[in-house]
Amino acid sequence: MITLASDFGSPYPAAMKGVILQETDTRLVDVTHDLPRQDVRAAAFWCRETIPYFPPAVHLVVVDPGVGTDRDAIVIRVDNHVLIGPDNGVLRPVARRLSEHASDRLPRQDDRLEYFRYDYTEPQSATFHGRDVFAPAAAVIHDHGIASLETLDAVTSISATATVQCEFPSATINADSATAEGEVLVTDDFGNVITNIPGSFLTGRTGEMGTVGTTTARVTSTFTGVDTGEPLLTIGSHGFVECDVNHGRGTEAFELTTEDTVQITF
Amino acid sequence: MITLASDFGSPYPAAMKGVILQETDTRLVDVTHDLPRQDVRAAAFWCRETIPYFPPAVHLVVVDPGVGTDRDAIVIRVDNHVLIGPDNGVLRPVARRLSEHASDRLPRQDDRLEYFRYDYTEPQSATFHGRDVFAPAAAVIHDHGIASLETLDAVTSISATATVQCEFPSATINADSATAEGEVLVTDDFGNVITNIPGSFLTGRTGEMGTVGTTTARVTSTFTGVDTGEPLLTIGSHGFVECDVNHGRGTEAFELTTEDTVQITF
Amino acid sequence: MITLASDFGSPYPAAMKGVILQETDTRLVDVTHDLPRQDVRAAAFWCRETIPYFPPAVHLVVVDPGVGTDRDAIVIRVDNHVLIGPDNGVLRPVARRLSEHASDRLPRQDDRLEYFRYDYTEPQSATFHGRDVFAPAAAVIHDHGIASLETLDAVTSISATATVQCEFPSATINADSATAEGEVLVTDDFGNVITNIPGSFLTGRTGEMGTVGTTTARVTSTFTGVDTGEPLLTIGSHGFVECDVNHGRGTEAFELTTEDTVQITF
Repeated sequence: MITLASDFGSPYPAAMKGVILQETDTRLVDVTHDLPRQDVRAAAFWCRETIPYFPPAVHLVVVDPGVGTDRDAIVIRVDNHVLIGPDNGVLRPVARRLSEHASDRLPRQDDRLEYFRYDYTEPQSATFHGRDVFAPAAAVIHDHGIASLETLDAVTSISATATVQCEFPSATINADSATAEGEVLVTDDFGNVITNIPGSFLTGRTGEMGTVGTTTARVTSTFTGVDTGEPLLTIGSHGFVECDVNHGRGTEAFELTTEDTVQITF
Repeated sequence: MITLASDFGSPYPAAMKGVILQETDTRLVDVTHDLPRQDVRAAAFWCRETIPYFPPAVHLVVVDPGVGTDRDAIVIRVDNHVLIGPDNGVLRPVARRLSEHASDRLPRQDDRLEYFRYDYTEPQSATFHGRDVFAPAAAVIHDHGIASLETLDAVTSISATATVQCEFPSATINADSATAEGEVLVTDDFGNVITNIPGSFLTGRTGEMGTVGTTTARVTSTFTGVDTGEPLLTIGSHGFVECDVNHGRGTEAFELTTEDTVQITF
Repeated sequence: MITLASDFGSPYPAAMKGVILQETDTRLVDVTHDLPRQDVRAAAFWCRETIPYFPPAVHLVVVDPGVGTDRDAIVIRVDNHVLIGPDNGVLRPVARRLSEHASDRLPRQDDRLEYFRYDYTEPQSATFHGRDVFAPAAAVIHDHGIASLETLDAVTSISATATVQCEFPSATINADSATAEGEVLVTDDFGNVITNIPGSFLTGRTGEMGTVGTTTARVTSTFTGVDTGEPLLTIGSHGFVECDVNHGRGTEAFELTTEDTVQITF
C-alpha cells in the first residue's frame, strides 16, 4: 500500500498516481491533497493525526515549498512503515507518532526511528518533484521492500540530527490552572479551531464558562452541549482544546486562525 | 466493497480509511466527503441519488451533528446492501431507494428493510465517531458478512419505528397544472437548483416560458436549449424540476438556495 | 484500469463509479473531478498534462457543456490506451500527447490515432450522460478489451476529420527574442499562471528581470529564487513560462486569469 498526502489540490496528484502505477499495481490511498498550502508545520500536524491510523505502508508526503533547491529527499522508517518526502520537517511528527502507535503503545526513543537520504538524479522539472522525484521513489521503495530499504543504491543511512526538525509550540498553564496560553495549530474544514492546549486543561470543567479573547464559551463534551450557533470549548478528537461552534464556525466566532495566540481563562 | 460518504471534507476521511484498512483489504470507494455540512436532509438526498448505483456493499454514511450524544448507531440491510451511520434519518431515503432498485424494479414495502442497532463501547473521542465508531463497525460488518449480520454480538434487530425518520417535503401542483409550489432540496456544485417538484410538471411544456419569483426562464431538455448565461427550467437527472443557467449558476440567477420555497407559474 | 476525469465536483462522480463497478471490478483511479467547469480547452490542457503519466487504461473524460444535444460520444485509441468522452475536442490534445509518449518518444503522425463513434441509445437523463452514457461505455469497452475495440457493436470507426478539434493558441516571440506574446492557458490551485509561451524563452535569462504588464519579476528556476511574496517567472512543470509568486498567488500579483493575453518583455 502507498498512501499519498500533499498540498497540491487538483489535478497534480493524478500525475503522481500515474507515475506510481507505471511501476507497481499496489493499492493507492489518498490521505488528502488539501494539506494547508506550503505550510509545513500545519501539514505535519495533519499527517500526524491521520497517517498513524493506517496499516504498514509507504507514505508519500509532499508539502515542499523548497522544491528545486538543494534540500534533500528523505526517508524515515518506523517498524513496517516508511515515510518519504522533502527534508523540511513535515515527516518528523508523524514518524514519532507512528513509533508511539506500535504494539507496546508506549512512546519510544526518537532513535528507534531510522533516517535515510534518497539520492535522486536531476529531475525533469524544478518545480514538480512530487511527480518527478517522490512518486517514483515511493514506487521503487515499495517494490523493493520496506524491510530491505538499506540495500537500495539510492538510499543512504543518515542520523536524525542531519534532518530538519519540526517542533510544535508548547502551551503554558498557569499555577492555579485557571488560565492557559497556547497557539492555534490548525483550523479544519468545519471551522473548528484546534489549539495546542492539552485537552486535560478542560477536565472537570464541563458546564463552566471560559473566556477566549472577547468570547465566552461553555465547556462541553459534544457539539450539542450548547444551542445551535453558540460557541463551545471541548476536547477535540486530537486530544487538544478546540474552540468550536455548534452548527457553525469557531474561526468566525472566536476570530482565530492558524498560528494565532490563544488564551483561555476560567 | 465499502463505500464512504461524509461531510468531513479533508483530511478526516483518511483516518476512517486507515482504521478500516487495519481490519480488511476490501475495496474502498469514496462516494463523497463534501456532503452538505451537518445538513441531514440534504445529505440524505445526495446519498439516495448516488449510493443506489453501486453494486452490493457496506455503505458508511457519517453526517452526524449529534455526535457524542446518546443517539444510536444503526444499520439498515436491504438485500445485499448494508447501510451504517448515525440514527438521525440520513440512511432512510437511500435505504428505500435501494429497495426500489432491486431486481423487480418495483417499490417495495418499507418493512422489507431490516433495521439494527449497533452497540458500541465508549469511543476514544466524543466528536469523531466516524473514526472511532462507524469505520470500525463498517469493517467488522463487512468481514463478518452482510448475510449473517444478525449473528454479530454488537448487532440487535430493531423495528423501523424505533429509528429517526427523514422526510422530504412534498410539492403541490394546482388543479389547472399552471402553478407548482415546492422547495429547494439541494443545490449542486454547478449552481443548479434542485427542487422537489416532479419533473412531470414540465412534460409537454418544452419551449414555454415559466416564471420563478422575478425570473422568467424557458423550459428546455438541455442546457444549450437557451443562450449562454440564460436561465432555464429542465427535468434534471434526479427526475425533479431544476432551475439552472446555461454556463452559469442557477443559484444566482434565481436567487435560490437549499430549503427556499419555490413557485413556478406558467 | 479505468481513470475518471470530469468537471462534476461532488457528488456526481460517485454515480459514475457505481455504474462502472456494477459491470467490472477493475481498478478505478480519479484523475480529478475539478476540471475547469464547462471549459473544454482548459480541461483538455489538464487531461494532456496528467493522463499520459498513467499506464495503459480506459480513460473516461466528461466535460460536456453540450450534454443532451446531438453531439457524438467518441472513442480514441492510442496504442493500449483508450479515451472516451464527448466529441467537443476535450480528448484530442491528450490523445496526441499519448502518442508522443509511446516507446520511441518521438511525435507521431496524427493518423496513428484511431477514432471511433460510440452509438448510445436514449439515456435515462438528458443532463447526466456521464452516468447514463459514458460510464457504462467505459465499463463495456474495458471488459471487451482495448485491442478488440472495433468488434463492439456500438463502435464505428470514423475519420479524425469527422471529430471536433481543440487547438491551443500559439505564442509569438519577436525577432530579437526580447518580447514574447501569448495567452494564459490555465491557472492552478496554487494561483500559478500557466501561459502558452515556451519555457525556452527563459533559457539563459536566470536572474534577469522581465516585465509582464505593470509587474516586474525575476527569472528563477525555483520558487525560492525570490523572497517570500515576490513574483517570479519560471519554466513550469508543463514546459511553459509561468507567472508565479513564492508563497503567494501569481493570479493576484500579475492580475491574470485563463484566456488573458500575456506579454513578457526583457
